[in-house]
Amino acid sequence: MEKIKTLGFGASGSLIGGKTLELMEFERNEPKPDEILIDVLYCGVCHSDLHQVNNDWKNTIYPCVPGHEIIGKVISTGSAVTKFKAGDVVGVGCMIDSCKTCSACSDGEEQFCEGPHGQTMTYNGYWKPEPDFNTFGGYATNIVAQEKFVMRIPQNLEISAVAPILCAGVTTYSPLKHFGVKAGHKVGIIGIGGLGHIAVKIAKAMGASVTAITSKEEKRAAALEIGADEVLISEDKEAMEANAAKFDFLLCTIPYAFDVNDYIPLIRRRGALVTVGLLGPYKAPTNNMEVAKFSSTIGGSLIGGTAETQEVLDFCAEHQILPEVQFINIDEINTAFDKIKDEEVRFRYVIDMASLKAKQ
Amino acid sequence: MEKIKTLGFGASGSLIGGKTLELMEFERNEPKPDEILIDVLYCGVCHSDLHQVNNDWKNTIYPCVPGHEIIGKVISTGSAVTKFKAGDVVGVGCMIDSCKTCSACSDGEEQFCEGPHGQTMTYNGYWKPEPDFNTFGGYATNIVAQEKFVMRIPQNLEISAVAPILCAGVTTYSPLKHFGVKAGHKVGIIGIGGLGHIAVKIAKAMGASVTAITSKEEKRAAALEIGADEVLISEDKEAMEANAAKFDFLLCTIPYAFDVNDYIPLIRRRGALVTVGLLGPYKAPTNNMEVAKFSSTIGGSLIGGTAETQEVLDFCAEHQILPEVQFINIDEINTAFDKIKDEEVRFRYVIDMASLKAKQ
Repeated sequence: MEKIKTLGFGASGSLIGGKTLELMEFERNEPKPDEILIDVLYCGVCHSDLHQVNNDWKNTIYPCVPGHEIIGKVISTGSAVTKFKAGDVVGVGCMIDSCKTCSACSDGEEQFCEGPHGQTMTYNGYWKPEPDFNTFGGYATNIVAQEKFVMRIPQNLEISAVAPILCAGVTTYSPLKHFGVKAGHKVGIIGIGGLGHIAVKIAKAMGASVTAITSKEEKRAAALEIGADEVLISEDKEAMEANAAKFDFLLCTIPYAFDVNDYIPLIRRRGALVTVGLLGPYKAPTNNMEVAKFSSTIGGSLIGGTAETQEVLDFCAEHQILPEVQFINIDEINTAFDKIKDEEVRFRYVIDMASLKAKQ
Repeated sequence: MEKIKTLGFGASGSLIGGKTLELMEFERNEPKPDEILIDVLYCGVCHSDLHQVNNDWKNTIYPCVPGHEIIGKVISTGSAVTKFKAGDVVGVGCMIDSCKTCSACSDGEEQFCEGPHGQTMTYNGYWKPEPDFNTFGGYATNIVAQEKFVMRIPQNLEISAVAPILCAGVTTYSPLKHFGVKAGHKVGIIGIGGLGHIAVKIAKAMGASVTAITSKEEKRAAALEIGADEVLISEDKEAMEANAAKFDFLLCTIPYAFDVNDYIPLIRRRGALVTVGLLGPYKAPTNNMEVAKFSSTIGGSLIGGTAETQEVLDFCAEHQILPEVQFINIDEINTAFDKIKDEEVRFRYVIDMASLKAKQ
């Protein structure tokens, strides 16, 4: 099989162990008949990139080239591809392939693929055929993805800012949609960062009254600016009590272990709280007395499949929603990771990949 | 206000502190114009009765006369009552009154009453007007309840066995209904006791394929007999793994602190687990990685309101569902509590209240 020489930025080990992301050359397989080769123009920087590079989930295969919020231009298409042609502006999110035949895949919910290897994640998507196989993400000059996993980017969305919709957008859109958020609902978005700030915009566009819930008083102005109707400071006990049993739906985007019991009293009867930021255990056992008291539910949600990824792109185009982004060059990625860790980013970094191509 | 002399069985302190339930005389207020005085014929023995008498929830006011699965005959009705007349066979569940004007009450979901005192529980339903007010339950010769909280008992339901539907029935019916359980669904009922055995029957009648999940091999035969399609022993690790991601809906009726993480892998994508037995914290923090992996939800649910209580009675009549009961005399109540604690009851004790009236 022919190989495509690719330039990327990745880590040969955990940053906690002193490593940094650095320039690396690797090879991708040539596109199969149903695959597409894409020139990467922009790539969003997701908190998951940091988790994965640091092996926080104990499953990282190094070298690790992150990046799953990818906007690019089609270079070439395999012979069986019908949806796209060279020159099309496209997006790739968290997955590049799956079995495509199981019931989850048939529903366009490939994040739950029941095939023998499950879905293939855009990076760190290893599985064990002969020889061992791993995937490298969008911090690179190009990417290859199966046609179904390549998204059409609506023409009226500004392509330099759209990348974060591919992960942060669909990750928040999916639970808001599944719980039927609509006009008349009171929605709280907990954590106003990369995911949370898009969630505020999406929930507003769905017609809900939206409260931004943050521990940081200094985020109040920004939260109102992006469209929140109200701001609730989670450290303010009196304000939290005044908002008891108020919310039909709460979306929690806090990316580290927290005590979900702090937020359960905010849920209205038969309401729900869904956590998308934390992929691990909560800080304390959930008190089912408080959950049962209002017959509420505490859910988790994982990204979204191809159907919902296209849907959120079209939804954002219709409602003119764009993430708030700060552009960086590839050389600034290590500093950007530090700032994400320190919660200093407002609200999402996007790498302009011209800065990587300049190194070719 | 006139008072009604009543004979009951109650506790003057926690059984853990060495007390037992014993004969006691107390007074009830005469029915107000919208209230009904009922001669108690049968009363189910709920695990909550044990929790409440033992002050497990740190809110018990002694003396405590339990009982909220009440079947009786109308003695007299207040002047404004239109739904019932003397001689009617009726039921009373977990509540006897509420504000009746808030949005929850308007929805027939009085268990979430937003009025100044909330709903009035059938027993231990204290609040603080002048003078202090508490309620005494159905381990008594009579009870008084507001008309809306008195249920019509369909004629084709055997009245000696129907009492547990008033609490155990509606408590399991409500979440099964809210999650839309129907034909084609795979449902697991965890814990096959007072609540669980009725849940198996209700889920079957809703059309689902039902698996009884129990830690006790010795409950297998009984679980199949009451209608479970399959039995899964939770201690059998291999069997648990073979059932991974199988269930659209799991209802957990275990009445003590357990680790919900043990059951989360059983949930199918976008499925749910609802806990109704435990009113307190789980044993360990929920791992949101496992919840999010299949975008599932972990809920809690609290009894049901007047609308669903009448609904489950009518549903049980339509499908000829009756709880499996063992009749006891009032003098056997302390032994019965011990057997409930030791999980020896199959599956619900019902007190024949003639045995109390014989003491008058």
